[in-house]
Amino acid sequence: MKLTRLHAQTVPLRSSIRNALVSFAEMTGTLVVVTADETRDGRPVSGLGFGSIGRYAATAIVQDRLAPRLLAAAPAAYTNDAGELDPLRAWDVMLRNEKPGGHGERSVAAGAIDMALWDLAAKLAGRPLWRLLADRFNGGRHDAAISVYAAGGYYQDGDDRAALRREIAGYRESGYTAVKIKIGGAPLADDLRRVEAAAEAAGGMERVAVDANGRFDEATALAYAAGLAPLGVRWYEEAGDPLDYGLQARLAERFPGLAYATGENLFSHQDVRNLARHAGLRPARDFLQMDPALSYGLPEYLRMLDVLRAAGWSPRRCIPHGGHQFSLHLAAGLQLGGNESYPGVFQPLGGFADGTVVTDGTVRLPDAPGIGIELKSDLFALFRPLRP
Amino acid sequence: MKLTRLHAQTVPLRSSIRNALVSFAEMTGTLVVVTADETRDGRPVSGLGFGSIGRYAATAIVQDRLAPRLLAAAPAAYTNDAGELDPLRAWDVMLRNEKPGGHGERSVAAGAIDMALWDLAAKLAGRPLWRLLADRFNGGRHDAAISVYAAGGYYQDGDDRAALRREIAGYRESGYTAVKIKIGGAPLADDLRRVEAAAEAAGGMERVAVDANGRFDEATALAYAAGLAPLGVRWYEEAGDPLDYGLQARLAERFPGLAYATGENLFSHQDVRNLARHAGLRPARDFLQMDPALSYGLPEYLRMLDVLRAAGWSPRRCIPHGGHQFSLHLAAGLQLGGNESYPGVFQPLGGFADGTVVTDGTVRLPDAPGIGIELKSDLFALFRPLRP
Repeated sequence: MKLTRLHAQTVPLRSSIRNALVSFAEMTGTLVVVTADETRDGRPVSGLGFGSIGRYAATAIVQDRLAPRLLAAAPAAYTNDAGELDPLRAWDVMLRNEKPGGHGERSVAAGAIDMALWDLAAKLAGRPLWRLLADRFNGGRHDAAISVYAAGGYYQDGDDRAALRREIAGYRESGYTAVKIKIGGAPLADDLRRVEAAAEAAGGMERVAVDANGRFDEATALAYAAGLAPLGVRWYEEAGDPLDYGLQARLAERFPGLAYATGENLFSHQDVRNLARHAGLRPARDFLQMDPALSYGLPEYLRMLDVLRAAGWSPRRCIPHGGHQFSLHLAAGLQLGGNESYPGVFQPLGGFADGTVVTDGTVRLPDAPGIGIELKSDLFALFRPLRP
Repeated sequence: MKLTRLHAQTVPLRSSIRNALVSFAEMTGTLVVVTADETRDGRPVSGLGFGSIGRYAATAIVQDRLAPRLLAAAPAAYTNDAGELDPLRAWDVMLRNEKPGGHGERSVAAGAIDMALWDLAAKLAGRPLWRLLADRFNGGRHDAAISVYAAGGYYQDGDDRAALRREIAGYRESGYTAVKIKIGGAPLADDLRRVEAAAEAAGGMERVAVDANGRFDEATALAYAAGLAPLGVRWYEEAGDPLDYGLQARLAERFPGLAYATGENLFSHQDVRNLARHAGLRPARDFLQMDPALSYGLPEYLRMLDVLRAAGWSPRRCIPHGGHQFSLHLAAGLQLGGNESYPGVFQPLGGFADGTVVTDGTVRLPDAPGIGIELKSDLFALFRPLRP
């Protein structure tokens, strides 16, 4: 097995939404197609991957650094003893000569290539990725149904609370049992009324998580915690800067009854280890949301799970950010706590295979080989012209 | 004052050296030229900047994200009430719509532009940058002579210790009174003999710092600390992964007599704040080496100094990595603890103005307007064709 081609391309990810901090109108993403010298049905087999949602394209890093290392390597450097593609070994090759620290952008480039490599490995093996992951890393165990929650609840013009109620009622009708909404874009009192409206539409406050996208200083973060604690929300996400472990620790100390979630802006196991050491989070109560497509892909995600296990955390406390098919396979094959889902935003990178049905807040994965990006027509339409 | 053009280009930074972890044979850098609508001596005034040494070029991030925001902005967004360029305001413009966390690569792109903006602002003011910084940020105080140390001591083929002695004797003849050498590329016992040889050539063990470039696991880091502690080296730099604050804290706890240095791979004030909070470093004894050219430039460096001051650190404990002219201006104008110097490597980005003389371990800055890259002929030769 030899890798013959690695193509990367930037795509616009236009979206009119904005969270508390950032407009996504100019957001871009990186698509990667990696091709092997083997054929199926008369055409070369290609693995498809992408940099995930919420950080910009890292196409130049793919093209200038990571891809040339992979394509210059002897196949023995990225295959196992049986001559099969081993994405773990390919990861070591593409990240040669990279200095420690500085985990951003590069982590998106590596994540996109790594996703494509796992898609390729699973296709070459003729198996769905979740099954390959379960067998290699989880003793064959897997989840047939994966818990998902609907992330949305952005601020809207006009009667925002009425629009929020309609949006959440729609998620509930689609089969979702849990939702997440934005906070921090309105005064605290208005935001709390927003949370109440969401809970009414969702059928219970325990079904509503809230997300500040790292916006708050410590005083504001604590004021929101005081407002949210009596309500019993599902979790309070990214109150302060994602690297301010001290702020996070003071939140849990002052308001231990709240559940907290964070991690989508940590892109290395070293950062996650610091989070586990210094942020006061509790393995029995809180949630971690690292996104493998933003953070060097599966090999680094496995290292994150390792440092978390050493600190007393179960993979069940991990619910990846990003709402994409790759994380859904990880959630199934590694038995994570579930996955984010974007029913209305971040298309087409976000979302699952066409026709995926949400039942009692869970979804199932198809049995097609690989990740199944070919089964998501709007996303596959972007990839189709990039294949050889 | 209006910015009319921002040009960025990748340059190879070929070098045959390697540290304990990384080969620099394929290293690249980003050059930035930012031009104003004002002229001096009949030509448009341009500011020159570059991404610093040891991380790869970030040219695409300059071109795709940061530069377009600056060039699209109204001049009022980056000028002060007097209509003069204010690089602090320009910084806010170029980093709009960037998410928190993930501080790498982007920090190099912003650092390169920021350097060019300060060079431009100082040229437009007709003043050397160190003087502009002293007046704006340091009550007019500055250092006329800046302490520098010679960083080198890479492993060499053949009789490595003899070569090391010759190299350090050369630094001493040139006026340096302190040096830094690499460790971790040989067994501990050999490395300790290397340190002894360096101390003999340098004229004292207190003149020799050692640098592991983040290579060691905790057991090795502690074994080296045990070997180095009785010697009295100047400092023990980057023993473990730059983000492993726990490892760093255990070093200081177990071997409090050693001085430690780190920070060249931390690129944000949030990371530096975590270092100050969690790494057990001591403001009276240890050294911090953040490089403004790698970490979003001067505005972020000022924020780093702020979070450090709040934790009890003086700017005198900060000695930037990188051995370049920009940090030398910061060291003079903000009265830092000195600056790194690369007499033999990382040319032409590293190094100071032609004819700079080292006297008793210190250097002086020229009085030319701006940073004075025009006075460093090998570096200016790269920039000259990029100006309009």
